[in-house]
Amino acid sequence: MASRPESDDPFLGDVSEGRILQAILTRTPPATHTLIGPGDDAAVIATPSGSVVATTDTLVHGPDFRLAWSSGYDLGWKSAAVNLADVAAMGARPTALLVALAVPRDLRLSFVERVADGFRDACSALAPGCAVVGGDLTVSDVLTVAVTALGDLQGRDAVTRGGARPGDVVAIAGELGHAAHGLAVLFGRFRDGETPVPVDTALLEAGERAAVAAQLRPSPPIALGAVAATSGATAMMDISDGLAIDARRLAAASDVTIALDSTALGENPERSIAGGEDHALLATFPEGFLPPGFRVIGVVRHRGEEDLLCDDLPVDLSGWDPYRDWDSVAG
Amino acid sequence: MASRPESDDPFLGDVSEGRILQAILTRTPPATHTLIGPGDDAAVIATPSGSVVATTDTLVHGPDFRLAWSSGYDLGWKSAAVNLADVAAMGARPTALLVALAVPRDLRLSFVERVADGFRDACSALAPGCAVVGGDLTVSDVLTVAVTALGDLQGRDAVTRGGARPGDVVAIAGELGHAAHGLAVLFGRFRDGETPVPVDTALLEAGERAAVAAQLRPSPPIALGAVAATSGATAMMDISDGLAIDARRLAAASDVTIALDSTALGENPERSIAGGEDHALLATFPEGFLPPGFRVIGVVRHRGEEDLLCDDLPVDLSGWDPYRDWDSVAG
Repeated sequence: MASRPESDDPFLGDVSEGRILQAILTRTPPATHTLIGPGDDAAVIATPSGSVVATTDTLVHGPDFRLAWSSGYDLGWKSAAVNLADVAAMGARPTALLVALAVPRDLRLSFVERVADGFRDACSALAPGCAVVGGDLTVSDVLTVAVTALGDLQGRDAVTRGGARPGDVVAIAGELGHAAHGLAVLFGRFRDGETPVPVDTALLEAGERAAVAAQLRPSPPIALGAVAATSGATAMMDISDGLAIDARRLAAASDVTIALDSTALGENPERSIAGGEDHALLATFPEGFLPPGFRVIGVVRHRGEEDLLCDDLPVDLSGWDPYRDWDSVAG
Repeated sequence: MASRPESDDPFLGDVSEGRILQAILTRTPPATHTLIGPGDDAAVIATPSGSVVATTDTLVHGPDFRLAWSSGYDLGWKSAAVNLADVAAMGARPTALLVALAVPRDLRLSFVERVADGFRDACSALAPGCAVVGGDLTVSDVLTVAVTALGDLQGRDAVTRGGARPGDVVAIAGELGHAAHGLAVLFGRFRDGETPVPVDTALLEAGERAAVAAQLRPSPPIALGAVAATSGATAMMDISDGLAIDARRLAAASDVTIALDSTALGENPERSIAGGEDHALLATFPEGFLPPGFRVIGVVRHRGEEDLLCDDLPVDLSGWDPYRDWDSVAG
């Protein structure tokens, strides 16, 4: 984890909160909309269009990630990406992150530095101008990263889940099923019994490597959220629990039926429809309004007996929670 | 914990996230500034004055609270209060909370309901119009409550820690040392060896009961943050780590020396100067501008050798972290 002598990389339990925060802040570029950044009681972020989009999402060691598989960098990146996706799914542009880190004392300072690097690089790659503007550091036996993301609608109305209309096309931006494929590779190939073991990428083919990367460091198409809103998206959400579950939620919120076309779902439609954690954007558009970056996967119909159809058949899939039965303290 | 049959109060591990969220949301009144509330990818909050104040603070079971002493209601109340205080300390009015709850599976649903009641009542009592607008629920072996609070400056500039000027008066709104007194009562009277045991209030005198309540359910003077800003406060912060530590931070940020007068610090000046967690507001004002609700405890001087003096003597106090040496998994 550290490329420097351990004597220069103390355990978090042995250093002051001030030093840890300093290590994070030196890795934190200013966010474009920041009026007052880290260091005071609270941050102040400009909201020129008169509203702010706000969401929070937490990753807990055990249920949500494993340190045998995820580096500190991966953890920072993914914590940022999943929250940025929720902001984008409202049609907004992310402006700022607030990060609450709860860390075991026996982690080293370099681990937190890598988490901060992951936040910085995910923001830079996925939502330029957005950065960490505030945070909190506490001690816990369970490594926990709670992120709040803020965003600006730039004068537009928010795109909720509730506006899809019969006759709209159903479209996707981003990947479907890659993160799930990656998790299957991790579960299938990098465990000793039930215990996760580090990933040896030399054992993986290119497609598997990409899938594992999609699981550990997802890259949702954040900028396309605002593009969809500008293009007249009638409803939108990000796909965190899988297309089947989330399309049903959108259909229920809009009181419509969504009819998918399996031939539009790639080489592995079952994985595309079931797999979660890619944080692709699912949106509906009036016909003829599809913006670049989105591809059509179905249509919106008047509400029928089913929320969701695929090739005109009901979709029978239960939830997406591959870690649910794991003991959250093991591994 | 439950006033109903256990059969009607399932373990969190046995109920769906949807049912838990429903239980929380039925206890969540709409916030005044909410444009889009819980249930979509993100909330949208009105920010009429063109900026938003944002802060995050986490309570972790073990280091930050003990369930033997704190009820779910206390936990929700305190998680709200400490974050509202940070918003108030910028001179802003709190508008919204986002709550990330990480809960063990063996807690009961009624516990989460009480946490939600605590959030609701703390907002109602301390910051009317503010409410929970979004959140996240995850499973963890360590009960963790990460709250983000948002606020509106109502057209004013934020009051930072950095604006105190020589000649200003140093003033306080709220209590000093009560929460510390309460913690001392808990540590001294309600432990079996090292293990916390439930508080029997019948064993406490009125002053002790009030002190324990101040520790478990602090009531910082949230509305006075905006009052201070309107009245021309030059610097402000909330006192979370004790007057000695926090006044030093304000002095350092403002490049001044703060000189306290012990006769203004109540019956127990040592406790007032050392005790944390009351979340009183510490502010500096030009002479003659002290608003109602604040009392003078000292003056701002040109920077000398010391950040902080009391009765013209250096203040020698180390940190305020009474739980630091506790094993965070015990109790």
